[in-house]
Amino acid sequence: MAKPLPVSPLASPLPALGVVAGVRLGAVAAGIRYQGRTDLVVAEFAEGTTVAGVFTQSKCPGAPVDWSRTALKGRSARALVVNAGNANVFTGRAGVETCRATAEAEARLASCAMHEVFLASTGVIGEVLPADRITKALPKLHGALSETGWEDAARGIMTTDTFPKAAVRMIEIDGVPVTIQGIAKGSGMIAPDMATMLGFIATDAALASAVLQTLLVKGVSGSFNAITVDSDTSTSDMVLLFATGAAGNRAIPDADDPALAAFREALNSLLLELALMVVRDGEGANKQIKIMVSGAVSDVSAREVAKAIANSPLVKTAVAGEDANWGRVVMAVGKSGEPADRDTLTVAIGGVTIARDGTVVEGYDETPVVAHMRGQEIEIAVDLGLSTGAATMWSCDLTHGYIDINGSYRS
Amino acid sequence: MAKPLPVSPLASPLPALGVVAGVRLGAVAAGIRYQGRTDLVVAEFAEGTTVAGVFTQSKCPGAPVDWSRTALKGRSARALVVNAGNANVFTGRAGVETCRATAEAEARLASCAMHEVFLASTGVIGEVLPADRITKALPKLHGALSETGWEDAARGIMTTDTFPKAAVRMIEIDGVPVTIQGIAKGSGMIAPDMATMLGFIATDAALASAVLQTLLVKGVSGSFNAITVDSDTSTSDMVLLFATGAAGNRAIPDADDPALAAFREALNSLLLELALMVVRDGEGANKQIKIMVSGAVSDVSAREVAKAIANSPLVKTAVAGEDANWGRVVMAVGKSGEPADRDTLTVAIGGVTIARDGTVVEGYDETPVVAHMRGQEIEIAVDLGLSTGAATMWSCDLTHGYIDINGSYRS
Repeated sequence: MAKPLPVSPLASPLPALGVVAGVRLGAVAAGIRYQGRTDLVVAEFAEGTTVAGVFTQSKCPGAPVDWSRTALKGRSARALVVNAGNANVFTGRAGVETCRATAEAEARLASCAMHEVFLASTGVIGEVLPADRITKALPKLHGALSETGWEDAARGIMTTDTFPKAAVRMIEIDGVPVTIQGIAKGSGMIAPDMATMLGFIATDAALASAVLQTLLVKGVSGSFNAITVDSDTSTSDMVLLFATGAAGNRAIPDADDPALAAFREALNSLLLELALMVVRDGEGANKQIKIMVSGAVSDVSAREVAKAIANSPLVKTAVAGEDANWGRVVMAVGKSGEPADRDTLTVAIGGVTIARDGTVVEGYDETPVVAHMRGQEIEIAVDLGLSTGAATMWSCDLTHGYIDINGSYRS
Repeated sequence: MAKPLPVSPLASPLPALGVVAGVRLGAVAAGIRYQGRTDLVVAEFAEGTTVAGVFTQSKCPGAPVDWSRTALKGRSARALVVNAGNANVFTGRAGVETCRATAEAEARLASCAMHEVFLASTGVIGEVLPADRITKALPKLHGALSETGWEDAARGIMTTDTFPKAAVRMIEIDGVPVTIQGIAKGSGMIAPDMATMLGFIATDAALASAVLQTLLVKGVSGSFNAITVDSDTSTSDMVLLFATGAAGNRAIPDADDPALAAFREALNSLLLELALMVVRDGEGANKQIKIMVSGAVSDVSAREVAKAIANSPLVKTAVAGEDANWGRVVMAVGKSGEPADRDTLTVAIGGVTIARDGTVVEGYDETPVVAHMRGQEIEIAVDLGLSTGAATMWSCDLTHGYIDINGSYRS
């Protein structure tokens, strides 16, 4: 990239990060693509660490996605290697070989099996990722890993991100203190249906991988799978959740166990916090858009309607222009293809009902809505008036910044 | 709009237009929304005129769409009334009443039944369209209708269009000379699945409405339904085809009749010419993109893949930036959800094969592709290597101009 991007006006400050017992991590400048910044991140996990993962639904996933999807079957994780700047996608046999060589080198350093090493890459597609850049940098990085390396890791996985993303929660399981901490990256090529970016979360809780997987899948449905920046689904994205067990809580066999109530809630809110950071770093974003759809024939249908609104370039440019153009919301509902009836449709922006039963409300005063549109967090609510299906999605506006960033990304 | 938009760099000059025997038309400034320009168009058709139509698939269509869809059941057309600037969508009972009042006034002037009057509106959504502006302007306009009013009509239906769109074909049916002539409008809120804009085509051929309908449906599948500007489907769009019968050719009962071969071909090419004008006037467009997908498991699947590429903001911004970023094409194939195999995928841009069998071709030289990207007509070809399904779609690039136009449309 020619020059650094200005930091998003919606950026969140990095929270005070703690440690997660059993996790050491760090970052190094391996010169993969960027100059003068870190671009290779490693995390190593204590023996006995379990893992859960969700991956992009792309039919053309990158080699690291294939690798990690396979590794996940072993249910055990000892290391994670992430590079930024090259996605290792559509690189044929060379891409597979880079994954193998990376995992082999890291397994030797971490004294673990190759299938306990997880890999993720993000960046440009179709260029060979030279394995030796990574394997040469790994030994030095291994020597510098630290329990306090979280911020370095959050910065090292960034690509077009304009701010590092991390979140932390502390709760208890059966009276035992437990930490959940995670980092994420992502700003473009974000669309629902997993995983739409990179997220790495670790906890010191002791949780079987099957329990962990259930918790993660449920958690992403209301967070990482409920955000969209530009409707484009990446070939590379994944969210991994590691549990080291260092906290020493008793084994809990069921994800629905009441003892996990606080953990579930904390995990879900952490996932949502990270996901919203991605939206708030949406390429060129000046405003966050929350879309609430109710009254649909089902939750799935509500989600499709919300997605149609969230992805509509005309809705997103209207928000960018601070124009309360609710007609475009109606258009997006109509194009979703989901059951909808013009004559039972209600549209509200910023809590103000604008249209009801197929027409604008009598005496509609645009003033409060105009004021709402000038803010940074826009709320659009649609009630279809058909049944009880509901869904919420988050998106951002579509601005000149998006064009600037994506019209010259590779150059 | 505050100031007129600059004419698209891809604009086509208006062709020399002829007359279509049995059609008289014209335009007038009715002051519906715009100042100092025509915004109301009427066409009147000779007795015995048959009609075919295709309409938006939106679940929230405008009142004029409902009206014309119903009118189509009568298979007979005597008049068409089109206004620009107000779409009469989501206007409740008032919108239905405006349609009724407009049709009633026009039916009186044209001495026909109300269900022989077709209506179309385009423009802002959710504002009441005052019937009296239209009904007051109709008598004067009726008196000024002319067989040579085609150019006026093409200009009168424009909204954010930057150039008028018309096309003409002259062929023979059984040795009888026949003319097909049409106008179109559209530049944003364009996406396939009918009708994505307004198109009005007339011919003096004598054709039963059932034959006409078959010809139109087939014709739009490779033209108006194969273009996309921004993936947003309008609530208002339609394509109508009128046949006055004035040419006096013999009745032809079957759309597949060999006697109609030249007519079919001419109609299809005219529809494609008009549809491509819409793409070439895509809001902010600097480049036309042709996407050819082959090797899919079916034509339908190929179409979905082509649509995913055509609608991808990342592909469209890459084209805007003249960046031969074929990795984003791979991404779009992957996100389409259609059967695809990375390892059998071939991607070519401007006729140059860039990637084959899951990796970049050996010794790939970007030079000719970079030169192609600098042109105005970009070609992207994808072969999935699975079977024989194929489809072609057209789109345009995504530029700052799109943001400019749509971030301030209503204001």
